[in-house]
Amino acid sequence: MRIAIVAPSCTLKREAADAVQAMVRERGDCELIIHPQCFLTDGHFAGPDETRLAALREVMADPSIDAVWFARGGYGSNRIAEAALADMPGAARSKTYMGYSDAGFLLAGFHKAGMEVAWGPMPQDALRAGGDAAVARALDWLVRRDPSALEPELQSPAMAFNLTVLSSLLGTPLEPDFTGVDLLIEEVSEHLYATDRTMFHLTASANVRRAARIRLGRVADILPNDVEFGTDEEAIVEDWCRRSGIAYGGRADIGHDALNKVVPFRRENR
Amino acid sequence: MRIAIVAPSCTLKREAADAVQAMVRERGDCELIIHPQCFLTDGHFAGPDETRLAALREVMADPSIDAVWFARGGYGSNRIAEAALADMPGAARSKTYMGYSDAGFLLAGFHKAGMEVAWGPMPQDALRAGGDAAVARALDWLVRRDPSALEPELQSPAMAFNLTVLSSLLGTPLEPDFTGVDLLIEEVSEHLYATDRTMFHLTASANVRRAARIRLGRVADILPNDVEFGTDEEAIVEDWCRRSGIAYGGRADIGHDALNKVVPFRRENR
Repeated sequence: MRIAIVAPSCTLKREAADAVQAMVRERGDCELIIHPQCFLTDGHFAGPDETRLAALREVMADPSIDAVWFARGGYGSNRIAEAALADMPGAARSKTYMGYSDAGFLLAGFHKAGMEVAWGPMPQDALRAGGDAAVARALDWLVRRDPSALEPELQSPAMAFNLTVLSSLLGTPLEPDFTGVDLLIEEVSEHLYATDRTMFHLTASANVRRAARIRLGRVADILPNDVEFGTDEEAIVEDWCRRSGIAYGGRADIGHDALNKVVPFRRENR
Repeated sequence: MRIAIVAPSCTLKREAADAVQAMVRERGDCELIIHPQCFLTDGHFAGPDETRLAALREVMADPSIDAVWFARGGYGSNRIAEAALADMPGAARSKTYMGYSDAGFLLAGFHKAGMEVAWGPMPQDALRAGGDAAVARALDWLVRRDPSALEPELQSPAMAFNLTVLSSLLGTPLEPDFTGVDLLIEEVSEHLYATDRTMFHLTASANVRRAARIRLGRVADILPNDVEFGTDEEAIVEDWCRRSGIAYGGRADIGHDALNKVVPFRRENR
């Protein structure tokens, strides 16, 4: 199993790359190819759009690569996602793609294009407290489809997204079909009023209303309101599910943390 | 001219209400009816949804009211906008509605429903430095359609929105038709990477791509990036306009500030 790491959003930290390489050497069940693009910096991004796109397309086209692992989130994969899918080489279709957070733009578009994608921990997570377990979980699933890495209550088909990322890809060419999907969402570093607004936007979508249910992962690092919002994140999500006629399926074991589980975007018709 | 003030989002401050009442008494060209709902508080909001909705519908239905002035922004008008438009009383159609920021949800839905709406300063702006001029500008336009209150470069039809609000109403029942519109946007208290992401979302919309042009108002209180984003707000907006084939029309004289100008959502077919 040869796993390539590229950074379609922000720069991967060297310490994270070193930690993940050390873990892989220890395991001995896979090989890691860390693309040098991961360490570039261009303002907010891990290199200019063209450079991030070229690195992504290079590993997509490489028939010796079995899986593409997105280095980290941040912001920026949406800027190259559509171009990554243009004139796709055949070898791109025989790989698995994994990441979360901002990488959700790629997961959405690649899944829509028929490729195998999964929400799951990323190399940069090695720097979190307890992050080794997250990295091991991701590799356990990539290398041997270890079921213990999976979010435990998944119904097929399933998808997982950061709420803000999901809201931002509605109406874009990256928007997948949510019909019958177990749709897991999580959020980080937002005000509760913004989460309420984003849920308004999300649940107004006719496509999202065709989901089987919405489940709520962890909502972390909630930014303070000048006055208390008045309800909590679960009440917000339940309220908008009720208003829009979407089933609310309870909490989900995903989030911007070391406990984040793997959610393969399984396709019903496979 | 009888102007009713209601608060579909957050609570109006008493000092702002008092200041605006004093200005109106001084002018002597209009009468202000400040609905007591403006001073309610329920968590983040100026009273529960049902109470804010009832106050809004009450002034909409009142034939003695000539204009409805939204007290302030914050967040929350989206939660009642659709219900405000249901079974609309005839008297609601013969008024002007004014506000900005979060009130954009109402401006969008009311304009779509055929009513006369305008982006413009709100009573709470009285508390800004120089805010008296903003309040006077709003009243000058509401009472006597003073052209000096208008954003100076408007082409008809025009609309103005906070960028995040506009992005959040795409795909909802509030989304108006942007065909041929001079579309003015502004932003406040967001990271530049979030503004880039929101522009990605906005300019992916086929409806938005039918706008005549996009113009950029002020982008205020930009939140710091941990690394510098690399470009500025105007470069971001120009970039997404270029990518999406929308004409960029330069800067606009609107924003979350005392200089904010009035933008009537004129309809081409009037």
